[in-house]
Amino acid sequence: MRRVLCLSGPNLQLLGTREPEVYGRTTLAEIHDELRAVAESRGATVDCRQSNHEGTLLDWIADARGQADAILLNAGAFTHTSIALRDAIKGVGLPCIEVHLSNPEAREAFRRRSRIAPVCVAKVAGFGAASYRVALTAVLDWLDARDESR
Amino acid sequence: MRRVLCLSGPNLQLLGTREPEVYGRTTLAEIHDELRAVAESRGATVDCRQSNHEGTLLDWIADARGQADAILLNAGAFTHTSIALRDAIKGVGLPCIEVHLSNPEAREAFRRRSRIAPVCVAKVAGFGAASYRVALTAVLDWLDARDESR
Amino acid sequence: MRRVLCLSGPNLQLLGTREPEVYGRTTLAEIHDELRAVAESRGATVDCRQSNHEGTLLDWIADARGQADAILLNAGAFTHTSIALRDAIKGVGLPCIEVHLSNPEAREAFRRRSRIAPVCVAKVAGFGAASYRVALTAVLDWLDARDESR
Amino acid sequence: MRRVLCLSGPNLQLLGTREPEVYGRTTLAEIHDELRAVAESRGATVDCRQSNHEGTLLDWIADARGQADAILLNAGAFTHTSIALRDAIKGVGLPCIEVHLSNPEAREAFRRRSRIAPVCVAKVAGFGAASYRVALTAVLDWLDARDESR
Amino acid sequence: MRRVLCLSGPNLQLLGTREPEVYGRTTLAEIHDELRAVAESRGATVDCRQSNHEGTLLDWIADARGQADAILLNAGAFTHTSIALRDAIKGVGLPCIEVHLSNPEAREAFRRRSRIAPVCVAKVAGFGAASYRVALTAVLDWLDARDESR
Amino acid sequence: MRRVLCLSGPNLQLLGTREPEVYGRTTLAEIHDELRAVAESRGATVDCRQSNHEGTLLDWIADARGQADAILLNAGAFTHTSIALRDAIKGVGLPCIEVHLSNPEAREAFRRRSRIAPVCVAKVAGFGAASYRVALTAVLDWLDARDESR
Amino acid sequence: MRRVLCLSGPNLQLLGTREPEVYGRTTLAEIHDELRAVAESRGATVDCRQSNHEGTLLDWIADARGQADAILLNAGAFTHTSIALRDAIKGVGLPCIEVHLSNPEAREAFRRRSRIAPVCVAKVAGFGAASYRVALTAVLDWLDARDESR
Amino acid sequence: MRRVLCLSGPNLQLLGTREPEVYGRTTLAEIHDELRAVAESRGATVDCRQSNHEGTLLDWIADARGQADAILLNAGAFTHTSIALRDAIKGVGLPCIEVHLSNPEAREAFRRRSRIAPVCVAKVAGFGAASYRVALTAVLDWLDARDESR
Amino acid sequence: MRRVLCLSGPNLQLLGTREPEVYGRTTLAEIHDELRAVAESRGATVDCRQSNHEGTLLDWIADARGQADAILLNAGAFTHTSIALRDAIKGVGLPCIEVHLSNPEAREAFRRRSRIAPVCVAKVAGFGAASYRVALTAVLDWLDARDESR
Amino acid sequence: MRRVLCLSGPNLQLLGTREPEVYGRTTLAEIHDELRAVAESRGATVDCRQSNHEGTLLDWIADARGQADAILLNAGAFTHTSIALRDAIKGVGLPCIEVHLSNPEAREAFRRRSRIAPVCVAKVAGFGAASYRVALTAVLDWLDARDESR
Amino acid sequence: MRRVLCLSGPNLQLLGTREPEVYGRTTLAEIHDELRAVAESRGATVDCRQSNHEGTLLDWIADARGQADAILLNAGAFTHTSIALRDAIKGVGLPCIEVHLSNPEAREAFRRRSRIAPVCVAKVAGFGAASYRVALTAVLDWLDARDESR
Amino acid sequence: MRRVLCLSGPNLQLLGTREPEVYGRTTLAEIHDELRAVAESRGATVDCRQSNHEGTLLDWIADARGQADAILLNAGAFTHTSIALRDAIKGVGLPCIEVHLSNPEAREAFRRRSRIAPVCVAKVAGFGAASYRVALTAVLDWLDARDESR
Repeated sequence: MRRVLCLSGPNLQLLGTREPEVYGRTTLAEIHDELRAVAESRGATVDCRQSNHEGTLLDWIADARGQADAILLNAGAFTHTSIALRDAIKGVGLPCIEVHLSNPEAREAFRRRSRIAPVCVAKVAGFGAASYRVALTAVLDWLDARDESR
Repeated sequence: MRRVLCLSGPNLQLLGTREPEVYGRTTLAEIHDELRAVAESRGATVDCRQSNHEGTLLDWIADARGQADAILLNAGAFTHTSIALRDAIKGVGLPCIEVHLSNPEAREAFRRRSRIAPVCVAKVAGFGAASYRVALTAVLDWLDARDESR
Repeated sequence: MRRVLCLSGPNLQLLGTREPEVYGRTTLAEIHDELRAVAESRGATVDCRQSNHEGTLLDWIADARGQADAILLNAGAFTHTSIALRDAIKGVGLPCIEVHLSNPEAREAFRRRSRIAPVCVAKVAGFGAASYRVALTAVLDWLDARDESR
Repeated sequence: MRRVLCLSGPNLQLLGTREPEVYGRTTLAEIHDELRAVAESRGATVDCRQSNHEGTLLDWIADARGQADAILLNAGAFTHTSIALRDAIKGVGLPCIEVHLSNPEAREAFRRRSRIAPVCVAKVAGFGAASYRVALTAVLDWLDARDESR
Repeated sequence: MRRVLCLSGPNLQLLGTREPEVYGRTTLAEIHDELRAVAESRGATVDCRQSNHEGTLLDWIADARGQADAILLNAGAFTHTSIALRDAIKGVGLPCIEVHLSNPEAREAFRRRSRIAPVCVAKVAGFGAASYRVALTAVLDWLDARDESR
Repeated sequence: MRRVLCLSGPNLQLLGTREPEVYGRTTLAEIHDELRAVAESRGATVDCRQSNHEGTLLDWIADARGQADAILLNAGAFTHTSIALRDAIKGVGLPCIEVHLSNPEAREAFRRRSRIAPVCVAKVAGFGAASYRVALTAVLDWLDARDESR
Repeated sequence: MRRVLCLSGPNLQLLGTREPEVYGRTTLAEIHDELRAVAESRGATVDCRQSNHEGTLLDWIADARGQADAILLNAGAFTHTSIALRDAIKGVGLPCIEVHLSNPEAREAFRRRSRIAPVCVAKVAGFGAASYRVALTAVLDWLDARDESR
Repeated sequence: MRRVLCLSGPNLQLLGTREPEVYGRTTLAEIHDELRAVAESRGATVDCRQSNHEGTLLDWIADARGQADAILLNAGAFTHTSIALRDAIKGVGLPCIEVHLSNPEAREAFRRRSRIAPVCVAKVAGFGAASYRVALTAVLDWLDARDESR
Repeated sequence: MRRVLCLSGPNLQLLGTREPEVYGRTTLAEIHDELRAVAESRGATVDCRQSNHEGTLLDWIADARGQADAILLNAGAFTHTSIALRDAIKGVGLPCIEVHLSNPEAREAFRRRSRIAPVCVAKVAGFGAASYRVALTAVLDWLDARDESR
Repeated sequence: MRRVLCLSGPNLQLLGTREPEVYGRTTLAEIHDELRAVAESRGATVDCRQSNHEGTLLDWIADARGQADAILLNAGAFTHTSIALRDAIKGVGLPCIEVHLSNPEAREAFRRRSRIAPVCVAKVAGFGAASYRVALTAVLDWLDARDESR
Repeated sequence: MRRVLCLSGPNLQLLGTREPEVYGRTTLAEIHDELRAVAESRGATVDCRQSNHEGTLLDWIADARGQADAILLNAGAFTHTSIALRDAIKGVGLPCIEVHLSNPEAREAFRRRSRIAPVCVAKVAGFGAASYRVALTAVLDWLDARDESR
Repeated sequence: MRRVLCLSGPNLQLLGTREPEVYGRTTLAEIHDELRAVAESRGATVDCRQSNHEGTLLDWIADARGQADAILLNAGAFTHTSIALRDAIKGVGLPCIEVHLSNPEAREAFRRRSRIAPVCVAKVAGFGAASYRVALTAVLDWLDARDESR
């Protein structure tokens, strides 16, 4: 049974209340519920967490080895500044998918650079709350394809 | 019935033969076949084209008004240099999804900047040939969600 | 009899339909009609064309030698990226006037740099559709003044 | 009754002991005492906290909605690097005043850029420990003026 | 009756004597005479002034409110450095046309950036002394067109 | 008796009439009246002046030696370009407080750099017209604290 | 029998007429004749083409696989801007020699950067029309040496 | 008896398991054991800790005053981004040695800049796990030499 | 009889009182006296002026044509920002010598760039108040040498 | 009889032993032998030298005036840093051909900039040891063509 | 018996006399004596040399092949500019340790970049004269460890 | 008796023969003769040398301690690249005057940066061959003034 770890970073606990005209009215809890339903329908599990602490995200990624087959990571603003997250992803050796609600490159210039993109296998951005579901479905397909080609 | 226009830019006709260790062995024709099957299963149509000519891509985008509900665009190397494509997307007023086989930001530095990202609603990158299918499914969902919320 | 070549580049065929709140409702065909009327009233001719293909614009400029006395060029987005257009203008040896509907320097930062300005004798920008007419009148005066001073 | 949240970031717990020739001999506890006295004299309250953890500051800002009317934020070194703090301030929707003991722009070059200034309504810097009091008084006046003009 | 204010900045009093091979032999007084004749033929007036003092130009622009319908501004070298002129133009709320004798972008690199272009409605450059006349005619047409469309 | 010199630079004479939605409706004369009242209540005097001329501001600063105990300087757009003002402040040897109505760092990118901040002891920005009063009160306190600690 | 593909890009059809003091009086047709003679004397063939269209050059390069042993490419102004040409060269997997009539690095600064150099095995520049012949001879030797060392 | 504080930052808990071909197979626990043995043989003590939390590292450094004679700091990825660590080191007033397993300057460009190097007295990098021991030995010698020269 | 114009820019009226440890105790009046004595001994005259107003300096330079044989210019802080001074020097067509008391390139980074150096024939910097005398003597010799070589 | 000077710079004495997988197994002595044979067959002479000392290369170039008709220069790593070599080439007034074994632009970024290219008439790079022979043949042809056209 | 080559570059012959407050009072001869004693105690030899000539250093490094097991290199100011040294180290194929007395990254900005670090196996900096001894001891250990692991 | 060391760097032995339209027809030997005559008339001596070798210049500067009172240094192209010369000047502790025949800042962009200016007390540039004499006279005066003020 496939296990996916879904991590969300700083300020994402505000989803559904913060700037709804930009981010929509869906809460993070509702997203997590939908992800669990999708996983179940695929015979998989998904473990969903959120933290405003970079160190906590680093701990979770490091501890995922042997506990998960892939990571969905919406690192929020840490996306643009954290080399430590980059190193953690590279170190744990699991395929990681970068996820964003909006399309960061269509926003301010300082959101153009992603520190983690170079160590991620794929990226999904701009579908609003649906980005998480799109990414989960795609990564499960990706894992199937990888294993078949081995 | 939803109509999607799927455009691929320079050198993508080489898919499946060019550097297979990077881009895989699936040809563009096979991708187009899969997209048409997916569209049919969703009660939609997809019109798939490729050109090495920037001017031809500009013509196709301009002519899409009233002929398509959304555009999937893998602009290849033009992604990083063409302001004209950006203007065409903005001018035609259709939702456009940026698509890439690989994760360009994980490659050379000059592939970090996307000229078209700021006028696209979403991006899918890094799932190999599957990026097209992921993007098609996601944009059809996105169109449903948009219409429901109107 | 003076002959002027008036070239318009990518996406300008959309004039009058694309973002009318920015570019106005006049179509390129209407502009061409007005230019021909102005030219006739001055005892001159003007040959008006548009293409989305950089290569086609290059062909037209190269073929203008001996066929035109001056060029009006609204290169659209190619203004900011095309060194080939710059070389073509320099190579053909005809006076070229850079024309824009809007004032590009008052828009996004990447529209600040004009690749062709350094090889043009003059620039007219920001008068909307009237920019073409202002430029045509000015270049005809400029040709008269140049010949008188010889 | 107005409620102000006053947050101090990394290393500010060292105030009064760290480099007193630069930062003076007043401790953060003494500053907090003075702020509470000033608030009381204005019929307001101020809640003063310090943390070396970016995540903790993010939590406090997010939780301030409905609990405070304005935020005084001395983000210390995070001022120059934290996009997450910027997002948190923007997300919570409360007026935020940037506060500094010294005048960072008069110090090293890397202290010239403030990541949070673009989302703050005002800034007070360079009055030493008094910067906090100046900012508290000014923001209370600012809130009065805002409400009068509504 | 339309009133236009025509301002020229530093070193333009040298026109006709300074580097005539670049700027021609027409003096600024002769240009001013021609502008007044053109204005009269259009039933308008033009008030022409020159100063080497940035502060004086700022005073004149600020005082133009209610005294002029549009401003022609050849800011000379201040074009590239003066944020104060930019603020003055924005503050006075009148349409301003940027004018240059030569084509600055075809000269040294530091003349590529115009500080005032982003707050001007249009630009005319490169027609020598005739640039002033071209701009005056164009702005009078522009004012007519604007009023008609209201 | 403490004497403070309050200088305002280019375009600030337009206050209350220029873009009131950004700068408010208070005029500079009203600000000066308030400053004089505050000073009187503190047993101090304040000398308030405005000029659009950088040279005049330089003269005033140089002449302040022995005539003032501190300077409040709202240099307007000169803030971002004038090294001469920086040198004048450094040369006169008086404490200088940088004052702004708005928060420049929250506006265009070219307003991020302050040429004078490195030679000022403090900064107050973003409280609208109240910024002047906040700065005057703070600098009087700062002078008291400085003298007590000597 | 060795087969070489010799491609020339934008504006090179003007050779012999454009700026002869820079590029000489030899036409591209004369160069092509000389190349064919040289190839024949070496028991090889050379296929010479020119286009102002980037897309046409891309088509030709992609179609060269299995049809040519090496490519001589004078990309003209596209040298400095076209990532698509770079990708095409890399994709087709044939040795490519960069050719220039003049020495671009001895000209304007924007001609210093070659987008295609990093994927070419060699470069010949600055010998005027003779650069083509020098490159053809050298690449035939290079192919011989490569095959001998296998 | 000399006391040394040895701090390791983000992801270093993965040592010995993460990318062993780059970092070797020695675990951080084994390094800590070796450091304690070396310290004992020198009549010193070493207190070894690791955290993924920047705030925790800041707390530990601030608390080291009076508790340690020197600090060995392998800040991992925080090396390149954390101004807060720099301020903490400067504030605590203890000699700090920058330690790295690999040679960061021989890796990606973004690892060239060390935020903490300017406030450290020395650096040891590139000896693999042995870097810690080399640094501990050297700093004990350094402390001896410093005290002798006093 | 040779006539030299010696101009000093912003803040130089403070000489001898401003930061004497950097600029020495000689006043500008004393420098002017020495220059007049040196000129007289050489059978020449020198006209010495100072202004804090860029516009006044521009007026003086423009009016120097036919009134002076050479210009000594210590533009102070305007050295680094004024393109208008550069244009004035170029326009008046007189040899200009850049003069500085200190060695600006040995100070802050923003004093590295001289806007006027590219249009000056020579530079003298770093000899303190003596820089003026060194420059005056050198330019008189230079004028003699130039006339002899004609 | 034509005389060519062939100079090789730092580390090229290691050819054939240093990184043979990059530079091949031919030694510099063998290259020199081949060059002398080629020159003889053309009725010319070639003088071949190598030095690790920039000063020695400068001496040789300066002394070449009247002793050689052209210079082949493989400046090795000095290519990217030595302005002195550039000045020497410009000063001696002989045509200089830049030669490289590999294609430097296809290697590290710091090898992209050639300090000497702007003063060389031509460049040959990337043919391995054969680059020297290609350059010698081409420059002899170039000298013939130049003399014929005189 | 291990043989180490210890090279010191420009100005290091001044050690002990140049700026002793920065570099200490130990001379290079004393350092060399200490190194020889340390080497002897380890059953090794060290050959110590110094030169101000980049070319001489290049000669010594090239000649070290087969004559030394490792190189200690304090390249002084050449560290920041010499690509030739980098190439020499890479070419000779011996392990090289970068050595500095001070910590260059804690000094001026132009000392941040080391041209040779990317080709060195390790770096020791900031221990004053002791840096040499630390490096020698460490590299002998490193050689032992390398050989044991083979 | 004052002793001055006058050093000239790369390519200056070509003076009088290299590009005489830029550098004049005076040879370096003639300049040296004039300097010796000037020195004698002032009761001083001057030791004049030239080398194309950076290392030789470094040796001469280091050996000047106790042998000279000041150094005149025309470092030629090394001016822009040599940090080693900068360190040598700083290390020897003698006042150094930067000398240039032309005005380097009025030439190519890469001659704008002087590596040695920040450690020189003064600069003389642009008087042609007379620059040496002007600098010698000025430095002798400067030494007198320095000693008088002690």
